[in-house]
Amino acid sequence: MKELFVEVDRYYEEMVSLRRYLHERPELSYEEVHTPAFIATYLQELGIDVRTGVGGRGVVGTIRGGKPGKTVALRADFDALALQDEKDVPYRSKVDGAMHACGHDGHTATLLVVAKILAEKRETLSGNVVLIHQFGEELAPGGAKPMIEDGCLDGVDVVFGAHLWASMPTGFVSVRPGPVMAAADKFTIKVHGRGGHGASPHETVDSIMLGTSYIQQVQQVVSRRINPLQPAVVTVAAFHAGGAFNVIADSAEILGTVRTFDKATQEHIIVEMERLLSGLCDGYGATYKFEYEKGYPAVVNHITETMHLEEQAVEIIGRKNVVHQEPIMGGEDFAYYTEKVPGSFFFVGAGNPAKGASYPHHHPKFDFDEEAMRVAAKVFLSTTVSYLENACKSETTVV
Amino acid sequence: MKELFVEVDRYYEEMVSLRRYLHERPELSYEEVHTPAFIATYLQELGIDVRTGVGGRGVVGTIRGGKPGKTVALRADFDALALQDEKDVPYRSKVDGAMHACGHDGHTATLLVVAKILAEKRETLSGNVVLIHQFGEELAPGGAKPMIEDGCLDGVDVVFGAHLWASMPTGFVSVRPGPVMAAADKFTIKVHGRGGHGASPHETVDSIMLGTSYIQQVQQVVSRRINPLQPAVVTVAAFHAGGAFNVIADSAEILGTVRTFDKATQEHIIVEMERLLSGLCDGYGATYKFEYEKGYPAVVNHITETMHLEEQAVEIIGRKNVVHQEPIMGGEDFAYYTEKVPGSFFFVGAGNPAKGASYPHHHPKFDFDEEAMRVAAKVFLSTTVSYLENACKSETTVV
Amino acid sequence: MKELFVEVDRYYEEMVSLRRYLHERPELSYEEVHTPAFIATYLQELGIDVRTGVGGRGVVGTIRGGKPGKTVALRADFDALALQDEKDVPYRSKVDGAMHACGHDGHTATLLVVAKILAEKRETLSGNVVLIHQFGEELAPGGAKPMIEDGCLDGVDVVFGAHLWASMPTGFVSVRPGPVMAAADKFTIKVHGRGGHGASPHETVDSIMLGTSYIQQVQQVVSRRINPLQPAVVTVAAFHAGGAFNVIADSAEILGTVRTFDKATQEHIIVEMERLLSGLCDGYGATYKFEYEKGYPAVVNHITETMHLEEQAVEIIGRKNVVHQEPIMGGEDFAYYTEKVPGSFFFVGAGNPAKGASYPHHHPKFDFDEEAMRVAAKVFLSTTVSYLENACKSETTVV
Amino acid sequence: MKELFVEVDRYYEEMVSLRRYLHERPELSYEEVHTPAFIATYLQELGIDVRTGVGGRGVVGTIRGGKPGKTVALRADFDALALQDEKDVPYRSKVDGAMHACGHDGHTATLLVVAKILAEKRETLSGNVVLIHQFGEELAPGGAKPMIEDGCLDGVDVVFGAHLWASMPTGFVSVRPGPVMAAADKFTIKVHGRGGHGASPHETVDSIMLGTSYIQQVQQVVSRRINPLQPAVVTVAAFHAGGAFNVIADSAEILGTVRTFDKATQEHIIVEMERLLSGLCDGYGATYKFEYEKGYPAVVNHITETMHLEEQAVEIIGRKNVVHQEPIMGGEDFAYYTEKVPGSFFFVGAGNPAKGASYPHHHPKFDFDEEAMRVAAKVFLSTTVSYLENACKSETTVV
Repeated sequence: MKELFVEVDRYYEEMVSLRRYLHERPELSYEEVHTPAFIATYLQELGIDVRTGVGGRGVVGTIRGGKPGKTVALRADFDALALQDEKDVPYRSKVDGAMHACGHDGHTATLLVVAKILAEKRETLSGNVVLIHQFGEELAPGGAKPMIEDGCLDGVDVVFGAHLWASMPTGFVSVRPGPVMAAADKFTIKVHGRGGHGASPHETVDSIMLGTSYIQQVQQVVSRRINPLQPAVVTVAAFHAGGAFNVIADSAEILGTVRTFDKATQEHIIVEMERLLSGLCDGYGATYKFEYEKGYPAVVNHITETMHLEEQAVEIIGRKNVVHQEPIMGGEDFAYYTEKVPGSFFFVGAGNPAKGASYPHHHPKFDFDEEAMRVAAKVFLSTTVSYLENACKSETTVV
Repeated sequence: MKELFVEVDRYYEEMVSLRRYLHERPELSYEEVHTPAFIATYLQELGIDVRTGVGGRGVVGTIRGGKPGKTVALRADFDALALQDEKDVPYRSKVDGAMHACGHDGHTATLLVVAKILAEKRETLSGNVVLIHQFGEELAPGGAKPMIEDGCLDGVDVVFGAHLWASMPTGFVSVRPGPVMAAADKFTIKVHGRGGHGASPHETVDSIMLGTSYIQQVQQVVSRRINPLQPAVVTVAAFHAGGAFNVIADSAEILGTVRTFDKATQEHIIVEMERLLSGLCDGYGATYKFEYEKGYPAVVNHITETMHLEEQAVEIIGRKNVVHQEPIMGGEDFAYYTEKVPGSFFFVGAGNPAKGASYPHHHPKFDFDEEAMRVAAKVFLSTTVSYLENACKSETTVV
Repeated sequence: MKELFVEVDRYYEEMVSLRRYLHERPELSYEEVHTPAFIATYLQELGIDVRTGVGGRGVVGTIRGGKPGKTVALRADFDALALQDEKDVPYRSKVDGAMHACGHDGHTATLLVVAKILAEKRETLSGNVVLIHQFGEELAPGGAKPMIEDGCLDGVDVVFGAHLWASMPTGFVSVRPGPVMAAADKFTIKVHGRGGHGASPHETVDSIMLGTSYIQQVQQVVSRRINPLQPAVVTVAAFHAGGAFNVIADSAEILGTVRTFDKATQEHIIVEMERLLSGLCDGYGATYKFEYEKGYPAVVNHITETMHLEEQAVEIIGRKNVVHQEPIMGGEDFAYYTEKVPGSFFFVGAGNPAKGASYPHHHPKFDFDEEAMRVAAKVFLSTTVSYLENACKSETTVV
Repeated sequence: MKELFVEVDRYYEEMVSLRRYLHERPELSYEEVHTPAFIATYLQELGIDVRTGVGGRGVVGTIRGGKPGKTVALRADFDALALQDEKDVPYRSKVDGAMHACGHDGHTATLLVVAKILAEKRETLSGNVVLIHQFGEELAPGGAKPMIEDGCLDGVDVVFGAHLWASMPTGFVSVRPGPVMAAADKFTIKVHGRGGHGASPHETVDSIMLGTSYIQQVQQVVSRRINPLQPAVVTVAAFHAGGAFNVIADSAEILGTVRTFDKATQEHIIVEMERLLSGLCDGYGATYKFEYEKGYPAVVNHITETMHLEEQAVEIIGRKNVVHQEPIMGGEDFAYYTEKVPGSFFFVGAGNPAKGASYPHHHPKFDFDEEAMRVAAKVFLSTTVSYLENACKSETTVV
């Protein structure tokens, strides 16, 4: 691997330039035009087979190795966020109201350089590498799903993805077998009672009484009705009902989110949420509308692939710098890839206050330490090449 | 009326003796043997037509007046309570575990003397007087209902009853048109979930969660679901579930009482209590058993009869001593009489700390001021005789 | 009284004209200019002593009788509502966005004609009559309080007021000793927790959990903490908190009304509402702001004055047409008058679908049967004159 | 290691005999007399240095190796349960009301044979082995704590313990780095209100309302107030209040259990449980008594030691038979050992329906497949000897 790492160091400046070029030209989810074109051109110039418009706006490159073998997919997302860039740096966003505030520019630059190096070594590769440049990760329903439906995983044996992670210092990598990012869903409930005069509650069906009862009752979905070993959150984030101080409200609206790491738990929560709602409404003589929108599923890393990745990371940055990642309550549509083929999603420390990389993701002053890309590129390369060489047998068991 | 009142004063000592005789010989509800026999003998010796065993253990005497007219019924109950008499008086109960702790001995003695006076005047009466000596008032289902079914109100135009009332000073009488004593009901609820290990709530249906939710929810039956102008109480008096600290309970038992003054409100409460219970059980996947036992209905005084009574009382003890009675949350089976014929139930002040009459009804040291019987007797006589004389037309309108 | 009633019939057409004149020219509460001027002129032309600007915009006339005696006050309110008149009648409101939708025009016209008749008879009166034409009844703090503070009740022995009542048919009058209209208060509660991400409830103080708990808990103020014989309502009419589906809300706002008929109960409810709120906030580590604005107090009619009024009404329209008024949950600032001097507020049936008088008060199509004014005028006159003649002794005892 | 495993096979019959001997002679926690004596004798006969009465009733043997090195402790508990043995086997309990229904007889027999083999090989050992035979594991406060206080871990570098596990088939071993068994605590809450008549809730402080509110409110401790990634259970297992259907209860008693895997979470739950209780009681004007008894802490396995153990198990029974153990909600006082020194607690499959080993632990018909002891012994031996040989450096980081 040593020679691959030398290549990464050699192309590091280019990687930084690529990143900054992208950073200045952010494009919002589902509005990406120039970014995928730029990526496609870059890959084509490397002699890589490129397919554009995959699932809509995705770009998929395929490097066919000189020798037969497995196929490894590497994924990088490239969309930006609807934020005003408030950083004071030369490469600051030139687009009003759009900003790479989550590091997808870094993901893309890293994968482009990884592609360059692999393309140059293609004759020595025992198998193929698929480069998945994904659009629309920030906004459900996400780009992963249509890209998969459009064939980006066809023939793929294993998939890896990374997130530059500003809350971990540069030089660290974190991994986790099993569930690592949550399914993040949304629910909207409307209960309909019968309004009336504030002085005559008996002539009404009080939707505020009903709604507040429900919010109290629904606590037990997490506290009593799911396996306590399964992390889950049911948050009621908004409640709105009524206007005048002396008029009993006709209806009440409840809005919130559910987070889970496990499909059965997620399904069970949906059932129990509605069961309680339905029962209470019967008890009040009221009706309801229950809408549950599933966001991305949980990202569940496969054990063997995660162990393989971890070994490579340990080789590169040492045992002490490869740490155990606690599950994260946020969502990622990388989930769809590992639902389809074995794989693992890992985190690359990119925090560095000395370089201004001290703001959380999605913050108007967010930045990351570009050195993190060097780490990410090496882990991607090493994981890919060693995988192909060992043709390690994938196991899909999940913790 | 003056001469009637002179008679009351003349027989006052006898009335006290009768009361003390009865006080020493209390008999529990539905176990009355000697008391009805004693009453029957007393009335028969006055030449009054007596029917015994009415509705079980009741005694009904009829005084037929010398002139035709209406028929007035007067009612006194004669059963005692399962209490140990702790008073230190010469006429203390001689029966272990039984005691006249509610004044029924006084009711009876009063009515016997009233009967004596009326019997002596019978030739001058324009109509008849029915003396209803009732058993079993203290314990539902009560003696009133079977006595009515056995004809004690047949031919009766109007009925009056009184309660000696230790929380009001002697010398006062209180009246109230409309509802004056509550319907006092009992409910028993059992909810059945599915027990299990305390560490695995998700494998159970937690009956304590369900039961406690219900108790919280059922508050709104009074606070939101009935007319706020209708006084009502829904009290959960007992809750029992579970044993070991680490075992989730299979079932929970809830016990309580409902008090109302209005039949529609009572029925509505029953419906709403079960509606909430049923809905919640559905929301929990649990089952329930809901038992509701109606006690005596509310005593609802008729307006005209109450006004008539009030006028007589004012004549006897003066305007300032006849007061407005707030509704009382306790029950009385006198309710059944005024459901059937017009009438009124009134209260005769019998409290007098100087004479030891300072304990609440049903207290082991309860006693009343015997002077109250003098007032009660005069009100009964005056109300009866003036009613017959005026043959006042009854209206059944209720406030 | 007969001759007084003849006068009423004689001036009936004028009364209707006055009412329609006022109906076409409604003025909103605290904006009354022409109405009080019109009233003042009318009274002055009758030779009545008039004081204007009383308590702001009130008009008080005093008719001094030919003979010494008591002083009776009669009150009529004259403000209108901010509604668009949607009736199709010739006398429809000519003012955009203002309408006599509660009958105050009728109250005023009635009292003007009553004044005219009494002024003509002034020499025969044994005492004086004070005509209280009140502004601003519809909107707290109301005109009654400043008018009293400005002396409108000085020297007054008794006060009467009426409301034309469209939900009772013309020809009926309803009276009630004791509390007849509720105290109607408003409360505003803000609870402050600490917001945060919807996936991290443990890092927040969830204001929706707190607010909904409170709404559930506060039910017991009515169901458990006040005397069940005291009618009361605590209504939460509005609850607002939160915005985005995945952000836990910082604070929640609760708005509602309390209705009571008894000052002690009202005060107790305020204490208990805040006690529960304070305890819960401590249990959540949150803070709150509790604002309670008292509206008008309950209107509590004095017994003797109400009985006097009832007798007069019975004379005029017969026993069957004078009915018992159930307490009304709405408010009236007449309350302030009977807090100060004995008196009674009564209701005059004014509903008549045949004449289009079938809409509720405060409805854009509200109208009343003008014949009701004839009844109201006769009751006012008869009550006033007989009161002065009998110089009946007032008792202030309240039920 | 091969030769060690041969020894296990050679002594297998003896191990079974030892187990059955113990199985017939169960002794309850804190009442163990013959069992520790039997163990001590057995070890002494092997020439092992034995200390008895350790921490009360514990037995500690020390095998000093021929070469210097680290010290490994192996622990087996030996107490039985207060159950009637209902199995139909020749080695069934001979003691009425006592039974080895959790496999501690097997733990002991295994460790005795392990001791025998190691004692025979003592000259070749690079370090020492401490044999911890522990009393009183089944009943808090447990024997581990006093034995540690009495020095059983002095000089020990690493500790291992196992549980024969009937819900996993024989032939499997399960391991888990980090928390593996829960802290199991007990709480007892008494709330004191003020009782009274069921018809007069306003004169009481209703302890059932308070208790049920608390049970509802306390749900949010798990659902809102702790890190959702931290598994926890708060179960209310019993609620008792009240007696007669018409008497409001003075006080209510609440009993339950808390399960956690993390000390900070445990402490936070205690604080939040009492915070809510205290706030609610203030809101009700009531008082409370909150008793929280901590049971055993969570068993938290050290990563390096667990990985070491896992490797050994894989060598013995193969990769596929060494599985990931989900955290278990039950408690174990092995927790105290790994709080003090690095170590790991693992599970040895012992279920085998064909041999009658199909009942859950603590069941009157519980039995285990004795073949499991063969596996346990081999894992103990291999783990111990390889540890001493590698003198692996312990890391105490916990997941």
